[in-house]
Formats: sequence, structure tokens, C-alpha cells
Amino acid sequence: MFYFAIDILGTIAFAISGVVVAMEKKLDLFGVFIIAFVTAVGGGTLRDILIGATPVVWLTQPVYLFTILGTVLLGIVFIDQLKYLRTSLFLFDTIGIGLYTMVGIEKGLVADLSPMMCVALGTITASFGGVIRDILCNEIPVIFRKEIYATACIVGGSSYFLLMLTPIDSAYAYLAAIVVIILIRLLAVRFHISLPNIYRRTMTGK
Amino acid sequence: MFYFAIDILGTIAFAISGVVVAMEKKLDLFGVFIIAFVTAVGGGTLRDILIGATPVVWLTQPVYLFTILGTVLLGIVFIDQLKYLRTSLFLFDTIGIGLYTMVGIEKGLVADLSPMMCVALGTITASFGGVIRDILCNEIPVIFRKEIYATACIVGGSSYFLLMLTPIDSAYAYLAAIVVIILIRLLAVRFHISLPNIYRRTMTGK
Amino acid sequence: MFYFAIDILGTIAFAISGVVVAMEKKLDLFGVFIIAFVTAVGGGTLRDILIGATPVVWLTQPVYLFTILGTVLLGIVFIDQLKYLRTSLFLFDTIGIGLYTMVGIEKGLVADLSPMMCVALGTITASFGGVIRDILCNEIPVIFRKEIYATACIVGGSSYFLLMLTPIDSAYAYLAAIVVIILIRLLAVRFHISLPNIYRRTMTGK
Repeated sequence: MFYFAIDILGTIAFAISGVVVAMEKKLDLFGVFIIAFVTAVGGGTLRDILIGATPVVWLTQPVYLFTILGTVLLGIVFIDQLKYLRTSLFLFDTIGIGLYTMVGIEKGLVADLSPMMCVALGTITASFGGVIRDILCNEIPVIFRKEIYATACIVGGSSYFLLMLTPIDSAYAYLAAIVVIILIRLLAVRFHISLPNIYRRTMTGK
Repeated sequence: MFYFAIDILGTIAFAISGVVVAMEKKLDLFGVFIIAFVTAVGGGTLRDILIGATPVVWLTQPVYLFTILGTVLLGIVFIDQLKYLRTSLFLFDTIGIGLYTMVGIEKGLVADLSPMMCVALGTITASFGGVIRDILCNEIPVIFRKEIYATACIVGGSSYFLLMLTPIDSAYAYLAAIVVIILIRLLAVRFHISLPNIYRRTMTGK
Repeated sequence: MFYFAIDILGTIAFAISGVVVAMEKKLDLFGVFIIAFVTAVGGGTLRDILIGATPVVWLTQPVYLFTILGTVLLGIVFIDQLKYLRTSLFLFDTIGIGLYTMVGIEKGLVADLSPMMCVALGTITASFGGVIRDILCNEIPVIFRKEIYATACIVGGSSYFLLMLTPIDSAYAYLAAIVVIILIRLLAVRFHISLPNIYRRTMTGK
């Protein structure tokens, strides 16, 4: 029940980020809905396709479609108010990333994949919805450019497998990994931490 | 036989729309062919991947590849004449949308999906070829911006399931749904009907 | 062992081409890695998804992930030196295309597809990593615009099936097809051969 609540809150947060990006691009009602939808379920869909877990999850569980539909309608009506909720949204989004990463890792374990590939699947689950959103909106994906995002998923996901080497119960390891992901992301944003700069010279232009 | 003829006409119409967009972008022969191909089969391919119906349909039925290949060669030769055929092409395209939607719905029923998800699959079948075309051509998909297109698929597809609640024979319901989709699209284009504007203020820029 | 060595060299060459493109776009460390990764494994991943051979190959064979990771780190450090290696890289890349095409054809044969569709799968394996790379970097795919690339895969792949109609041993036909692909690409680049121009009038602009 707790997990389900977080899952739905994460879906809502991801969908809202889609609504905001799509409305900046002046898409129509259908376009806004599709962008919100792929942002929220795109990562899990790609994961399911890569491991062959089809039909993909949202085709059999209508709760995602309804949640996103409701979010889009409310998001469009209250688009001006959304900016005041920025902090709450960021928090839901960050919690969503933590949970989505672990959901992806679990699916990888069920598919008998190695820990490293489970972490890759978890990262895909949490981050590729945003990648597909940006591609559909004709932008270079934002997580390829400036945000500590996937890094949090990778470190947090790996910490789960490290904790599993200790006598710690797997349920605690699961929760601890989610907390690690959330903390890394919060700290990175709070203290403006980004990946090490790989460009030697300062370049002008974007 | 009738369905097969419409299916091929729809494939030709979709492929031509790909040729036109690709040639505006000055792609080479291979690029034009690939864009025509994904426009014609991209929606069905995505549908098959989402439900796990692999190998996807065009890999086992070469008629699509041959049809598209012929269309591309003729399309390139007669590109200047294509503009005079705009009305006929629009009609084939619209009939294609109607048929493709119902083909997608049928595949969803075979995969044991709920009516709502069948409508989603039908809409994906009819509209995502154009979405992939636009992404490959580095444009924001046109159906996210201004056209009544997916809406026709959704309303028409839903009408099929509503008709199935009545004593009407399923073959008639099938045909009626195709007619509904075609009519909505024709009326929307004829009377310049678009989705309700979700933006309060007039904004400059695109 | 020989094939494995070429496969790894091809992976490295493809990954380096991803690093170069991604660094031109000023992506961060994670972005560069993802672009390198999709360039190297994207074609094979799309092939596996289309035929339903899941989990896709890199999820079960970690050698690809490690190879690409190492290539990215070395590529970033020695980015300035990479330009002096351009000829060697082009050669690896071209050998990679030849091998990847035949790997795709073999997978098609295992999936019981017709020769024509096997050639299509081989071409997808060899060329769609670059397509996905360009889309993620917000460019129209370069192979749709100017390069003899897919054409080499199609001709070479077809030559394999033609040779199989003769009494030639299949291992020799396999090698001969790879050589055909490599030769076509080398000759096309050396003599600036491109696909026939399909545009009648000279147009300004790109």
C-alpha cells in the first residue's frame, strides 16, 4: 500500500513534468497528454521491451492511464499555480526516481539478470521517460547535459547489491537504496553538484 | 479482399506522406525510403512490440516492403505531380487511419486487453508512424500540435465497443467504427475544427 | 575468436564515433556514455526487439558494457588525439559494419525469416545505432543524408544469399559478404560515390 502510494505519487510528478515541458512547447491537448504519458511510463515501457516482459505494464494496469489523464487535466487547469508547487513536485519526482529505480532492479532480478544489468535497468526505468519526453519535444535530453540524475540511480542501485552482501534484511536494503538515491539527488541539487567537467577548454556557445 | 485492398491503399498513402516530408528535408534515396517505411509501418511495429507480438508483422509479410518500395520509386519520379493528387491522397490516408485503428483494436482483443487499452493500441497503430517520421526528420510531431487525428481514432475506436454493447453484429460495428473515424477526420478538416485551445493568453512565437 | 575480436573492435569503433558526436554537443559524462552505448549496441538492440529475441544481447553479455565504458573513458582523455587516428577508426568502423550486417543476417535466419528480411535485419543491425545516436543528439540521421552506408550492407548482405545459391561453402560466403560490404564502403568514400541525386533542381539551403 505504501509502495503503491509512492508509485502513484511518482507517476503524478513525472506526468506533471511532462505537462510543463509540453505546454512550454505549445502542444495541443492530445500532445500534452502523450508527452505526460511517455514521461511517466516511458522508462518502464523501454525496460519491459528490453527484457521481453510484454504486454508492457500500463497495457494491463489501467491505473496508470487514469492517473495520468487526471493529472493532465488538473495540470492544464492549474498550470499557473504549478510554479508555487515546484518544491513539492521536485520532492515527489525525487521519491519517484528512487522507487522507479528499485522497481526496475526487481524486474531485472526476476528476469535473472546480473546485478550490474539490474542497476542499468533500474536507471533506465527512472530516467528514460524524461529522455523520450525531450526527444518528442525536439530537445537534447536534459539528463545528458547537466543534471545529477542517472548517477543517483546508479549509485543507489549499486548500494542495494552491496547491502545484500551484508546480513541486512533485503527489505531494509531496498528501502536504504531508495533513501540513498533520494539523498544524492537532493544534495546534488542543493549544493549544485554536477558530474566532473570533461571539457578542458572553456567553449563559447551552448 | 476488400480489407486487404484498403490496407494496401492505406500503406501507399502513408508511404507517400513520408516521401513528401523526407524530400522536403532533402534526404537521399535511402533516407526517403526509410522515412516512407517507418511512416507506413511504424505504428503497427510499435503496437506489436508493446504487446510482444514478434517478429513484427512486416518481417513476415513482404507485401508491405514491396508496396512501400514501389511507392517510393514512383513518388520520387512523380513528386511534382503529387500535389495535384492531394485530395485523393488525403482520402486514402483518412481511410487508412480508420482501418489501421480497427486493426490495432483487433490485435488488442487477441492479446486479451481491455477495451480502453484496445482503443489506445488502435490509436498508436494509426498515428505513431507519423510521430516516428517527424522525430526522424527532427520536427515536433505534427499530430501533437494541430491536427484532429488521434482524437478521431479514439472516438471511433470507442464507438466500436459501445456498438458491441448493442445487439448489432460485430462486423457491422467494425465497419461503423471505421466510418465514424473517417467522418470525424473529414469534418474536422473541412470545418477547421481543432482541439479546444488550452492556452489562456495569446502568445507570440510559434 | 577471430570474430569475437572483430566484434569488439567494431564495438569500440562505434562507441568512439558516439563519443566524438556527443562531445561536439558538449554533453556531460553520463550523456557521452549513453550516446556511445546506443551507437554501439542500438542497432542490435532494435533488431532483437523486432524479432522478439529478448532479453536483448547486451543485458546478458556484460562484455559490451565494459568495452564501451573503457572506450568512453579513454576516448574522453584522448579526445584530441582521436583525430590522428581517424583512418584507423574508419577502418574498424567499416569492418564493424561488415560484421554487424552478417550477425544480423544470422539472427534473421535463426528466426526463420526470408533472405530479404534477413538483409533488412542485417542493415538495421549495422546502421541504426548511428540513427539513434543522431536522434538523441537532435540531428537528422547522417545516413539518411549523404553516406553510402546502408547501401553497402544491403548489397553485401544480398551477395551472401546469391553465393549460397552456388556450391560455395557457407563460411566462405559469409566472409565474402563481409569483404563486399567493406570494399563498397571503402570505394564509395575513396571515390566520393553517393546515391544518385533524386532532386532535379539545385536548391539553396541545406
